[in-house]
Amino acid sequence: MMLRTPFEEELEKLHNQFYAMGTEVAAQLKKAVRAFISHDRDLAKEVIENDEIVNNYETKLEKKSLEIIALQQPVSSDLRTVITALKASSDVERMGDHAVAIAKATIRIKGEERLTEIEAEIKKMGKAVRHMVEDALDVYLNSDERRAYEIAASDEIIDNYFRDIQAMTVEGVRKNPDAAFAAKEYFQVLMYLERIGDYARNLCEWVVYLKSGKIIEL
Amino acid sequence: MMLRTPFEEELEKLHNQFYAMGTEVAAQLKKAVRAFISHDRDLAKEVIENDEIVNNYETKLEKKSLEIIALQQPVSSDLRTVITALKASSDVERMGDHAVAIAKATIRIKGEERLTEIEAEIKKMGKAVRHMVEDALDVYLNSDERRAYEIAASDEIIDNYFRDIQAMTVEGVRKNPDAAFAAKEYFQVLMYLERIGDYARNLCEWVVYLKSGKIIEL
Repeated sequence: MMLRTPFEEELEKLHNQFYAMGTEVAAQLKKAVRAFISHDRDLAKEVIENDEIVNNYETKLEKKSLEIIALQQPVSSDLRTVITALKASSDVERMGDHAVAIAKATIRIKGEERLTEIEAEIKKMGKAVRHMVEDALDVYLNSDERRAYEIAASDEIIDNYFRDIQAMTVEGVRKNPDAAFAAKEYFQVLMYLERIGDYARNLCEWVVYLKSGKIIEL
Repeated sequence: MMLRTPFEEELEKLHNQFYAMGTEVAAQLKKAVRAFISHDRDLAKEVIENDEIVNNYETKLEKKSLEIIALQQPVSSDLRTVITALKASSDVERMGDHAVAIAKATIRIKGEERLTEIEAEIKKMGKAVRHMVEDALDVYLNSDERRAYEIAASDEIIDNYFRDIQAMTVEGVRKNPDAAFAAKEYFQVLMYLERIGDYARNLCEWVVYLKSGKIIEL
């Protein structure tokens, strides 16, 4: 077993916190989409309440990062690693915010005329987004540069869902104008899911950035 | 004149870069909303092309921040100031992304059946958002804690526009289902503007965070 430096030990703690936060956000996303599709207000409320857990993780991660920088005074690539964890945690926190926004849409839409065929598609998209988030967390925590490209590319699948379901919703409301309120919520939920996919791609970009030292857009 | 430390000098350079970036993003937002309202594809294309300028600013800011941390090794509140500039620059960069998204909506919507009364309202909301962004940049760069609360509170005005114009759009498309495509774009533009308001509020929160050392939600 190789002896690790104090910096490496601290970094591992930071990554463990990151993993815990990411796992919580992926669970929030899963519940939020399930609540929206199954019209489950109670589950939606649970997601809204749990947001505090995610925010607490972010605060803790930020504290830990600052502590590492101040006490270990890392330079060059080590410093970049800590800064990246700090920025990436903002991305993960925002994924959590969007899961909450989906939960809020669940509460607003209750009792309105709905379009079941759109909801079936949102379910599929939600699943794809959740898998992408889980994969991106994995890629990030394992600094897996090769898979980073692969997972980042899967954002295209999400974007296709986004455009296709938007177009279906436009058609749906054209034929059934009473579903206009629900359509408003569908458009919002679609945007939240699409943004979560973007944040997942960001996580992949951080990996490449750390390896190459260059900010790139995959 | 007081003698400044090397750290203070570097921090001023960082803040100057931040100001230049913020000014560019505010200009992008102004153009994007104008393009959307006046159906001006050429102006929209200009906004899309200019996004590179904003991204370059962010890269430069990030480089400068890392350089300051590595060379000056700031601790406690100085370190927090640099880290905050780094995180705040992400927020400003995302405002720029949303301005680009509004420009793209301008291009997509061209030629579709539109709802002029909704566009008139979006114009008002766009103006309010731009003022909030300019004020928030001011607050951030002057570390004006008192005004931070005031400007953060003005996000409520944006949120009211958001909800009211959403409701108007739902009504508009109910009465005129042929405007369903335009409505899709209105909902998106509304969300982008609302998010930009959130990012502006974030900037205000950073000021309070720097003064108090606590992350709070205004």
